[in-house]
Amino acid sequence: MVDIASRVYNHKWKIDPIVRSLIDTDFYKLLMCQSVFRNRRDTIVTFSLINRSSHVPLAKLVDEGELREQLDHIRSLSLSRGESTFLRGNTFYGKRQMFRSDFMEWFEALRLPPYHLERVGDQYELTFEGSWPEVMLWEIPALAVLMELRGRAVLKDMGRFELQVLYARAMTKLWEKVERLRSLDGLRVADFGTRRRHSFMWQDWCVQAMQEGLGSSFAGTSNCLIAMRREVEAIGTNAHELPMVYAALAETDAELAQAPYQVLADWHEEHDGNLRMILPDTFGTQGFLDKAPDWLSGWTGIRIDSGDPALGAERAIKWWHDRGEDPREKLVIFSDGLDVDTIIQLQQQFAGRVRVSFGWGTMLTNDFRGLVSDNRLAPFSLVCKAVAANGRPTVKLSDNPNKAMGPQTEIDRYKRVFGVGPQQAMDVVV
Amino acid sequence: MVDIASRVYNHKWKIDPIVRSLIDTDFYKLLMCQSVFRNRRDTIVTFSLINRSSHVPLAKLVDEGELREQLDHIRSLSLSRGESTFLRGNTFYGKRQMFRSDFMEWFEALRLPPYHLERVGDQYELTFEGSWPEVMLWEIPALAVLMELRGRAVLKDMGRFELQVLYARAMTKLWEKVERLRSLDGLRVADFGTRRRHSFMWQDWCVQAMQEGLGSSFAGTSNCLIAMRREVEAIGTNAHELPMVYAALAETDAELAQAPYQVLADWHEEHDGNLRMILPDTFGTQGFLDKAPDWLSGWTGIRIDSGDPALGAERAIKWWHDRGEDPREKLVIFSDGLDVDTIIQLQQQFAGRVRVSFGWGTMLTNDFRGLVSDNRLAPFSLVCKAVAANGRPTVKLSDNPNKAMGPQTEIDRYKRVFGVGPQQAMDVVV
Repeated sequence: MVDIASRVYNHKWKIDPIVRSLIDTDFYKLLMCQSVFRNRRDTIVTFSLINRSSHVPLAKLVDEGELREQLDHIRSLSLSRGESTFLRGNTFYGKRQMFRSDFMEWFEALRLPPYHLERVGDQYELTFEGSWPEVMLWEIPALAVLMELRGRAVLKDMGRFELQVLYARAMTKLWEKVERLRSLDGLRVADFGTRRRHSFMWQDWCVQAMQEGLGSSFAGTSNCLIAMRREVEAIGTNAHELPMVYAALAETDAELAQAPYQVLADWHEEHDGNLRMILPDTFGTQGFLDKAPDWLSGWTGIRIDSGDPALGAERAIKWWHDRGEDPREKLVIFSDGLDVDTIIQLQQQFAGRVRVSFGWGTMLTNDFRGLVSDNRLAPFSLVCKAVAANGRPTVKLSDNPNKAMGPQTEIDRYKRVFGVGPQQAMDVVV
Repeated sequence: MVDIASRVYNHKWKIDPIVRSLIDTDFYKLLMCQSVFRNRRDTIVTFSLINRSSHVPLAKLVDEGELREQLDHIRSLSLSRGESTFLRGNTFYGKRQMFRSDFMEWFEALRLPPYHLERVGDQYELTFEGSWPEVMLWEIPALAVLMELRGRAVLKDMGRFELQVLYARAMTKLWEKVERLRSLDGLRVADFGTRRRHSFMWQDWCVQAMQEGLGSSFAGTSNCLIAMRREVEAIGTNAHELPMVYAALAETDAELAQAPYQVLADWHEEHDGNLRMILPDTFGTQGFLDKAPDWLSGWTGIRIDSGDPALGAERAIKWWHDRGEDPREKLVIFSDGLDVDTIIQLQQQFAGRVRVSFGWGTMLTNDFRGLVSDNRLAPFSLVCKAVAANGRPTVKLSDNPNKAMGPQTEIDRYKRVFGVGPQQAMDVVV
């Protein structure tokens, strides 16, 4: 029977919105947002979209009008009552009332600030400038909108059954990955694929397939909305934007050298347990660990997000060992460019030596490689980063120079201050 | 929005019926039924289910109660008004009013006659006895019910996403076949897969995928209900049951020798054009063609349903040639055990020499080989045949002795009467 009212209601949509909720974002954005709201609320930050895959001519593929409609729709969103109740009432990382009342009141009143969009050649220049806790919430939806609009552009000429077979192939592909992972003893893997997902519906499918296929090996999702709807754990801690902005605000080289630790000192006050995860690579992991204060070695774990992941884990294990900690009680989260082969290899290499967990991103939620001709649905490397804070440029060095960002003079200064030597370049796939 | 009424209505179903319409059957059954209704209406015929794949223990897999519920449901069916209108009003094979009023009135009043079901070891003995035009309509729904119940038995313990991936894989598999066929110049292929389909919904999907994927190379479906719903051609002419029953009714060897021609003489009166298809293999093709009356060489084509298909086509071409006919104006329909490889090979071998068409059956609508463990969804060789007429056993020789049927003494007599020499045995897959 046709639900006539639903059909008529659906006809009234002017667009098919890609992002339909302010919590359709990575959970760590909300954790960081609360931290920023508390500690650096008035900082003026600029986020900017950067397409590291210049062979994907976004402005040719995606109509500017459609992009504006999607972004405008996001600006019309506000936290729903149920979403607010979830954030206020749910247990995150074993903790009730993770989000304080003052933050929740602010968040309930929030609408995302304006964006600036301009076409430059075949790419879009898309920036967000405003108070840090507000503009930081643009990053994930902006990326998700562009990824999905690009997908829609590719899909729009396909037939109904051709489309069904496309998704059949994608489902089969993912399920074969799940079947391979199922055999891994002690696996812990979470979905980290919101930002570069093929689409919201597809990410939601992937999460549910992982739930069924991996059972208790599936640790949860970084997507707060999907975590709420599917009743799984919301996963995520902190990201590079914290040390990048703190560092940009430093007045002296000495303050700069301390900035990444100041970030974690602020975090230390708020969080414990599995939320005490170090992300050490913003300005080079080795220097960060060498100069880290003692209280940091007591933290629960390290997230490895650039460079050779096995080397990174060995370095972490050695660091804990040198600091008198037992690595087997520590947690390593791998989150950079993972796919099944790397997950299997890293799990086999490190299980038993350290607690291991995986944040599986783009190759979970957007592995459409090889499914249409010319690979036009393959994921690509799109990021949205804090590029300036209170008028000063930010810098990221990373453990992979191909992921470095910022003006060259500032990069040089940071390298000097953080004692970063030669680095090994690795391809950035996504 | 949930359509509450639909949900509640669906809850009221006691079973999920597999066959929901009397025209969810092969179109040729209806053509033959009309012919039988006209010419041999009072013959008492017994149809019997025969599982040629004894390794599939149907009675262990399929609950007898569920089987009875499905068969009882079929006995409750009658022609709907729309179905009747379709049969009366649609153009079949270019002809309006294919079905005469007296036949339609009879069909509109028809309910299928009782069945006899008994478990014998791990198999079911399922027979239908009654007036020929009535019992003959049991064949296809009985087969479809058993095939689908066996599938349901295999699927019942699978998870939701496991199921979705199973169908995703099946869709991908079929689509890859469609993509291979798409490149064939001048291809004509029809769905002949009703009887041993995986399920009704799956057959319906396959037909639609062929419509989109093959365009005008898709000739239609043998399934009358799907032809109506999807607005494609209903395809099919006649089958072995006609000569088998006519032969069983013969009083003398001389009458027996003439029986297969008598079938086609009756058919000749009713049909022309593409409906004048010879099915020559019931009692051996070579003898049938050698002794065929001249008017038969004027018929449109030959359907090749057993034996080596290329040899069969060569024999047909030679026969037409010998009889002074131009084979390039004749039609060969291949319908035995086809899959993509054989279709491609036969098309390439015979295109240009004769008009070629394919009736693609089980490997179109039930190729679930390799998709679950132990191949428990692989199609198997289940048939439902006329085994007796007015108390006399029927016989089928076929061009493949593995497809022969009937008591050995009768087989020997038929071989003598029809002059069948040594035959080459071929595996019967489905």
